[in-house]
Amino acid sequence: MKDIVVQKFGGTSVADTDKIKNVARAVIREKELGNDVVVVVSAMGHTTDILTKLAKEISQNPSPREMDMLLSTGEGVSIALLAMALQEQGCKAVSMNAMQVGIITEKVHSKARILEIKTDRIREHLDSGAVVVIAGFQGITDDFEITTLGRGGSDTSAVALAGALKAKRCDIYTDVEGVYTTDPRIVPCATRLEQISYEEMLELARVGANVLHPRAVEAATQYKLPVRVRSTFKLNNLGTLILGVEEMELHRPVTGVASDLSQLRVVVCDVQDNPGVAATLFDGLAKENISVDMIIQSYARKALNTNDIAFTIDKADLDKTKEVLEKVRPELNYSNIFIDDKIAKISIVGAGMIDHPGIAAKMFKSLAKLGINIKMIATSEIKISCIVEQSRANDAVEALHTVFGLDSNSVAEVKGDLPNI
Amino acid sequence: MKDIVVQKFGGTSVADTDKIKNVARAVIREKELGNDVVVVVSAMGHTTDILTKLAKEISQNPSPREMDMLLSTGEGVSIALLAMALQEQGCKAVSMNAMQVGIITEKVHSKARILEIKTDRIREHLDSGAVVVIAGFQGITDDFEITTLGRGGSDTSAVALAGALKAKRCDIYTDVEGVYTTDPRIVPCATRLEQISYEEMLELARVGANVLHPRAVEAATQYKLPVRVRSTFKLNNLGTLILGVEEMELHRPVTGVASDLSQLRVVVCDVQDNPGVAATLFDGLAKENISVDMIIQSYARKALNTNDIAFTIDKADLDKTKEVLEKVRPELNYSNIFIDDKIAKISIVGAGMIDHPGIAAKMFKSLAKLGINIKMIATSEIKISCIVEQSRANDAVEALHTVFGLDSNSVAEVKGDLPNI
Repeated sequence: MKDIVVQKFGGTSVADTDKIKNVARAVIREKELGNDVVVVVSAMGHTTDILTKLAKEISQNPSPREMDMLLSTGEGVSIALLAMALQEQGCKAVSMNAMQVGIITEKVHSKARILEIKTDRIREHLDSGAVVVIAGFQGITDDFEITTLGRGGSDTSAVALAGALKAKRCDIYTDVEGVYTTDPRIVPCATRLEQISYEEMLELARVGANVLHPRAVEAATQYKLPVRVRSTFKLNNLGTLILGVEEMELHRPVTGVASDLSQLRVVVCDVQDNPGVAATLFDGLAKENISVDMIIQSYARKALNTNDIAFTIDKADLDKTKEVLEKVRPELNYSNIFIDDKIAKISIVGAGMIDHPGIAAKMFKSLAKLGINIKMIATSEIKISCIVEQSRANDAVEALHTVFGLDSNSVAEVKGDLPNI
Repeated sequence: MKDIVVQKFGGTSVADTDKIKNVARAVIREKELGNDVVVVVSAMGHTTDILTKLAKEISQNPSPREMDMLLSTGEGVSIALLAMALQEQGCKAVSMNAMQVGIITEKVHSKARILEIKTDRIREHLDSGAVVVIAGFQGITDDFEITTLGRGGSDTSAVALAGALKAKRCDIYTDVEGVYTTDPRIVPCATRLEQISYEEMLELARVGANVLHPRAVEAATQYKLPVRVRSTFKLNNLGTLILGVEEMELHRPVTGVASDLSQLRVVVCDVQDNPGVAATLFDGLAKENISVDMIIQSYARKALNTNDIAFTIDKADLDKTKEVLEKVRPELNYSNIFIDDKIAKISIVGAGMIDHPGIAAKMFKSLAKLGINIKMIATSEIKISCIVEQSRANDAVEALHTVFGLDSNSVAEVKGDLPNI
């Protein structure tokens, strides 16, 4: 049996028929290397926006079930067109939607998780010599309801399919050339990484990298599946290989620097310091599906028996958060709320960090040297994040990129056309 | 159990979101009459054209399987949007594609026939009080391949669904107000028919009426299902009811007059008058899927032992027909081919014709009076068709419409905005 390679092409890569023909060439190239090829595609370019606009013309709050029915049509178009383009270039191909494959998900609309992928129909087509083109982003429940996987859904589809098919590799084709040490828009001498571990990628993805969705990285970790992020438009560039830390050839203490401007900081002042108070607050937020990132309980005023609780949330969740805070006010008995939306989260990530003490100190010292005040700090085994003034975010990223030896004058590399992390 | 009414809305009726909201109102109105309602919709407006154009950009000859995958996405959009519009207007609704319903067809792409429709999932939703919005035009094979039903497919879906669900009626909503005695563009005093029999409708449909596809009429005949053709935009107008001849209240000898300009006449001259010669010719045409309408073998020249064979075909089939004629030339040994593409088929249709002798004579006399030469004649129990010079088609229709008492000064009626038969 041949090795299977799963390729995933996002909406930008299939935005028009010329680009689809280009994708067909990349697929055929992989097949000519002797592999069985499964291709996962997203909807063309702005399809999702156009469909969402139609829905909004009808209802400000369309039912998630019908939104999934609506949005899942987008990939139906792109898989059919790509199969045609492959056939036109003389390559046997067949398109399949999630229902035909059997990509079974939870019964949750708009952000379902994949439970199981049936592989028998795909294998039949592969055995007949065909390239199988599969609709990303969508699934079905076991009672035939159509679901979608939410943001980054096609990445997740591709990695999960690769896992289920025991593929040797999953290639995520995108409009960037790989994963960079930082956003090349901020630091022009950012370096493309040849390898990065799942854990590092996960941290970078969580702090604002758009290359690969965290759920896809998690799935890759589960399956121990090597994932390559590479450019659709520069096929000779091998991009970045994401793999297990034990498979990596080089361990640097710091692999990348990221800044994330999507959060804001909420400080709840003078909260009664009673047991269960924090639980009440964060339970309330969790129930509204508000995901809280950093949390600090600080400035305890012993005399008043009060604390300040500070946390960061996604800017989009502000209104819902305010409602929750209003609801829990009687129990928390806080004095007031302070919202700071001019913050940036600056993170350094590296699997080698754990073996190199002093990395945190080096980070804090670098920021202090620039006169940048640190408002919050959070750490994991392979990441240190600091909340700073938004206006100083780029200064911070630049300085840290240099301090930790990531500038490309030390590691020369071709840079991507488009921004990355 | 409530009565079920199936409503079908074509692409023009759901061309934009305002029109979809309008359709939702028509659906709710039917539901408020106390019926369970199943709605069948086509793809929005020009969706099929847009998708076909994309396919053509990729391949001049895209595979029928992938075309079906591509085109079937169109109804996915319209069913989801209509379900949203119904919900927005406070009506419980759920959309279903062919796969979810289980509209099982033959394994033939682009023009599959429906073999079976599963009704259990639809009934479940109806029993829960929901309007069920179903994708027309599409089906699936028993091994989960997506098919489409070809021209008039959504009409056929609607009628077949109504039959399977034992609905009391199927309403075909369209942009005309019903079935007319003839094309109002040609004869301004054309009359809308209140009733017409399946057989008459079938003959009218075959001779060029665009109101309801012949396959849908055939399905209605099978199920003995009353079908109402009515206007989406004038809900107070009851349109035309198509039903069994025995249920009709009034039998007129002639119900309608139609002209069909889509055919051309082929005359094969001096064919050897041997047994099996006609079979060779028409077998050859059938194998190429060329559908032959009228056939006349005439002008036998006994001395030469030859015949002329004349037949009419669809203009689109001319090239294929020429190829067949070239192929059978050695066997037929004809002298030459004469192609006449300036013809019109004028037909009068009426279930009462059979009881009224002299209808044919009256038709021929009327045409003769106008100096219109008849090139071919074909008759069935309820139809007489004549091939005439195309330039005289409108004169012929007008005269016959008057002669057979169909002008609306005798039967006053409101006329449709748009042409009909």
